[in-house]
Amino acid sequence: MAERTIRHFEEELEQLKTRLLAMGGLAEDRVRAAVEGLVMRDAGAPDRIISGDGPINELHIEIDKRCFTLLALYQPMAVDLRAIVSAVKINTDLERVGDLAVNIAEASKRYLRHPPVKELIDIPRMAGIAQSMLHDALDAYVRRDVALARAVLDEDDTLDALKTQVFRELLTYMLQAPSTIEPSLDLILISRHLERIGDHATNVAEDVIFMVSARDVRHHAAEGDGLD
Amino acid sequence: MAERTIRHFEEELEQLKTRLLAMGGLAEDRVRAAVEGLVMRDAGAPDRIISGDGPINELHIEIDKRCFTLLALYQPMAVDLRAIVSAVKINTDLERVGDLAVNIAEASKRYLRHPPVKELIDIPRMAGIAQSMLHDALDAYVRRDVALARAVLDEDDTLDALKTQVFRELLTYMLQAPSTIEPSLDLILISRHLERIGDHATNVAEDVIFMVSARDVRHHAAEGDGLD
Repeated sequence: MAERTIRHFEEELEQLKTRLLAMGGLAEDRVRAAVEGLVMRDAGAPDRIISGDGPINELHIEIDKRCFTLLALYQPMAVDLRAIVSAVKINTDLERVGDLAVNIAEASKRYLRHPPVKELIDIPRMAGIAQSMLHDALDAYVRRDVALARAVLDEDDTLDALKTQVFRELLTYMLQAPSTIEPSLDLILISRHLERIGDHATNVAEDVIFMVSARDVRHHAAEGDGLD
Repeated sequence: MAERTIRHFEEELEQLKTRLLAMGGLAEDRVRAAVEGLVMRDAGAPDRIISGDGPINELHIEIDKRCFTLLALYQPMAVDLRAIVSAVKINTDLERVGDLAVNIAEASKRYLRHPPVKELIDIPRMAGIAQSMLHDALDAYVRRDVALARAVLDEDDTLDALKTQVFRELLTYMLQAPSTIEPSLDLILISRHLERIGDHATNVAEDVIFMVSARDVRHHAAEGDGLD
């Protein structure tokens, strides 16, 4: 690319990163608000989350367009090419996180129709971990920081362990008192939605490692793609 | 592109399609085998599924490499560019379907430790619909068939209705007999995994519509991306 073209490309890439961070921020906010609504038993929260996906959906479409425009206009190579294809994938992951916030809100709405099954401790912990994973994964993308991306992958086990713990505990409640079955089912679903948010953060982190090193860590493969 | 380059590009694109279809076939087979193992109460099936994800993971990496090579070598434009970026996304969706087959197998393994809760009718129906959605969505990709892709989107509602029906029915069992709670939970999870397979087929179908028409149907947006 000519020097002036390179400068334009770099500027557009910076804007793309900014928009991805904005999208990540929106997704995180929605997850936080959904879980806060559940913990505080705020009956109005779910509907606000459910009806509030306009901005994230608009950003989703905008980011996809930016990626296609960058690919078509600048025909980038190597790490730049991987950065933009990764952005398409990360954009999809973030949009799904937004959808999962809606799923959490829908389950909360049903849950809040019943008396509380128990004090919620592990679910907000799971939400906190999932949010910080997402945040760190996007930070790793923007800074091309492989070490940070690897740290995100490690966090996923903690989330998985908490999900199993939530399940075991709620099963005990369900077996003891049939009246807790229906609300417990919704808490189990919520814990799984949070686990999936962690999975999306993991996807982002894996994309970052691939982008920077051209190494595909997803199935423990050790070879690059030879494009550097 | 020069004529000879175009011919090479077309050939490579054909190969990419063939590999995506192979990947789709593997993913479908694994879902089918996982649900058959559950219905036939074949205690050996889950472990075969759980340990058998090697081929699909290898294909996942291979297809991603093909896409990056195509983008880097031929720098395609418009519908070709969209076809390849879509292939990256579809590849991710198919890999997730393979993971969901593992999730179904894991839940089946636990389920088969208990006496059957009920005769399984809706779950194999859901599996059949999810598989045919996946199959049709990939067919639509290969043939660039927007009408077929739209038909896939319509099927998703059927899957969703079945999931709700499975949930309601199992809840009744759980409320009546605590001994059915644990196995019923696994059936509920399995029905959700199947619903997610339908979601992945939906993603593929949306990518096809975007690829062919440059229209983003995901959030009912009506505008193209202006790249044609």
